Amino acid sequence: MQSYPSKLLEQAVNELAKLPGIGRKTALRMALHLLKRNVQEVESLGTAVIKMRNDIIYCTECHNISDQELCAICASPKRDHALICVVEDIRDVMAIENTGQFSGVYHVLGGIISPMDGIGPRDLHIEALISRVETGKIVEIILALPTTIEGDTTNFYLFRKLAEFNLKLTTIARGVSIGDELEHTDEVTLGRSILNRTPYESGLKQ
Amino acid sequence: MQSYPSKLLEQAVNELAKLPGIGRKTALRMALHLLKRNVQEVESLGTAVIKMRNDIIYCTECHNISDQELCAICASPKRDHALICVVEDIRDVMAIENTGQFSGVYHVLGGIISPMDGIGPRDLHIEALISRVETGKIVEIILALPTTIEGDTTNFYLFRKLAEFNLKLTTIARGVSIGDELEHTDEVTLGRSILNRTPYESGLKQ
Repeated sequence: MQSYPSKLLEQAVNELAKLPGIGRKTALRMALHLLKRNVQEVESLGTAVIKMRNDIIYCTECHNISDQELCAICASPKRDHALICVVEDIRDVMAIENTGQFSGVYHVLGGIISPMDGIGPRDLHIEALISRVETGKIVEIILALPTTIEGDTTNFYLFRKLAEFNLKLTTIARGVSIGDELEHTDEVTLGRSILNRTPYESGLKQ
Repeated sequence: MQSYPSKLLEQAVNELAKLPGIGRKTALRMALHLLKRNVQEVESLGTAVIKMRNDIIYCTECHNISDQELCAICASPKRDHALICVVEDIRDVMAIENTGQFSGVYHVLGGIISPMDGIGPRDLHIEALISRVETGKIVEIILALPTTIEGDTTNFYLFRKLAEFNLKLTTIARGVSIGDELEHTDEVTLGRSILNRTPYESGLKQ
């Protein structure tokens, strides 16, 4: 066990090392960096994380992070509220929003089913999704979960839960990334890209 | 520019992204991780860094980080106070202390001379080192600075400043790491390890 010349430093290192992907060496480098910064800068870091944790709200509709009870997307009259895209967490919402290609709304599960990590269906916002569907106003649900065993399990669970409702259930397309070379694409992706081939669009049509 | 669903989240990400080696993606991952932790845990992170920055003291003798005016090493009667090891920062003190091989005291410069980064001799604790030498109680100074241009510049600067005093000036040995193979050692290190060869010790003597 490393011994630190100061208890205050040791405590800060202990706390920083709890952040994901941060080991004790990196935590020490961060702490020494903070010691060289002025007091105001360090206070704004400390208070920003505390304030975020204490004051952040989750949208009551889609469970996205929000500053109001209803997030900006759910509150927007310009979005298609009959089209829900189901995602694992808020980073996926940000990634899809960045594309500018999606006009519907979201449903953030807050994770995926993972028995290994002790995460079951009840730990996710699945009941809330069913409630939204039960209003009868939803036309299509797009599943945009990761292509892992956990993602597939969650997809299948949702499929069974949603099968009884009269709605279109789709998943996002998987295929060769634009710009990627075929020879460097993994077999599963390449295989799926052939199975799910789409009609050729010349780009010449209006 | 990425748009965030919440100002509070955005502020926390902005602050976390100022940490060394942390980009905006990693900062977002950290912020989302903190949102899943309980309030007390996040508060102890926030207050630990603020408390460290506000309350930490530097040893008046060696400029190491400390909880008292004189650090545990400088205050110890068991250490050889006539032998000073000069290092760049407190991480070096911790590394050398971990070896258990050094019985002297330290002098933390707080950086090395680096004109590129605008760090000159006056930004370092060099005057304080000279003052310690001027007491006439110092027998040997070991320079343990990095083997970079900046380290060499600082070594040379200190050498010129300290030349007028009657003391032994040494640098730590550079050579092939224990366990390393010769064929994988860089030429400069290998060359230096031959120049600075040491008498063979069989380990059989008492």
